Amino acid sequence: MSVRYSLIAILLSVLMFACGNNAKSDMGTEVSDTVVKKPMTKDGIVRLSKIEVFPEYLQEYLKYAVEVGETSLLTEPGVLTMYAMQEKSDSCKITILEIYASKEAYQKHIQSEHFQKYKQGTLHMVKSLELCDQTPLNEHSILTNTIE
Amino acid sequence: MSVRYSLIAILLSVLMFACGNNAKSDMGTEVSDTVVKKPMTKDGIVRLSKIEVFPEYLQEYLKYAVEVGETSLLTEPGVLTMYAMQEKSDSCKITILEIYASKEAYQKHIQSEHFQKYKQGTLHMVKSLELCDQTPLNEHSILTNTIE
Repeated sequence: MSVRYSLIAILLSVLMFACGNNAKSDMGTEVSDTVVKKPMTKDGIVRLSKIEVFPEYLQEYLKYAVEVGETSLLTEPGVLTMYAMQEKSDSCKITILEIYASKEAYQKHIQSEHFQKYKQGTLHMVKSLELCDQTPLNEHSILTNTIE
Repeated sequence: MSVRYSLIAILLSVLMFACGNNAKSDMGTEVSDTVVKKPMTKDGIVRLSKIEVFPEYLQEYLKYAVEVGETSLLTEPGVLTMYAMQEKSDSCKITILEIYASKEAYQKHIQSEHFQKYKQGTLHMVKSLELCDQTPLNEHSILTNTIE
């Protein structure tokens, strides 16, 4: 198995090098396809946001929620997780697991253009919103959220 | 940036190869330090388990919860996420985000020795339990849960 892992890693190196050579925009400046994430700090935030959406706006709300989650993950170094779920027994109940590397990262997030677009665009769709801050039980258990 | 990534990847290869050479048990058989995870399937399960614990058993319950989460992640190929959180505003309220690769993986999990130890050991500590199955909003948003 270890030889297989080594081979996979070497192949990944080659692949990343190859991709790296193409990672230039039309302007000749280098662009990265994913933002490098900040480490979690002591004042980081782990939150479950519980949202109930008016049924008549549900489909529209879902589009906003997917967009803001994806943009935040792809562009904000301090947004570590933004994982949105819809309750199977009541599709109007949405829970978003949000992890911010620090309070500063959270402040940057809520001031961002994409968050404000979501917030202002969905105000009239949201019946209730509850922000439930959490303490992870196991500090060794790490979540990584990527867009694939 | 791309050169830096390539260098990091090459260094990781060397590191993994070096670690790989030590990945032999005393019996001479190869052991892996983490189990290879199964891919998510169409009948996979994304669940928020909401548990309220009697205050007098809280500290004892937390130990059980940490142990079963860690063992499940480290040993079960089909347990993709097992992320437990304690509500800041009410420490007796626990939410566990659980992701299983398939219904079969879930069945294996609840039949495992470590889950049965948790389940039977904490039955008298649990005031209420709600299993809330979820549909992730964005199929491209992937969570990876590791023990570090």
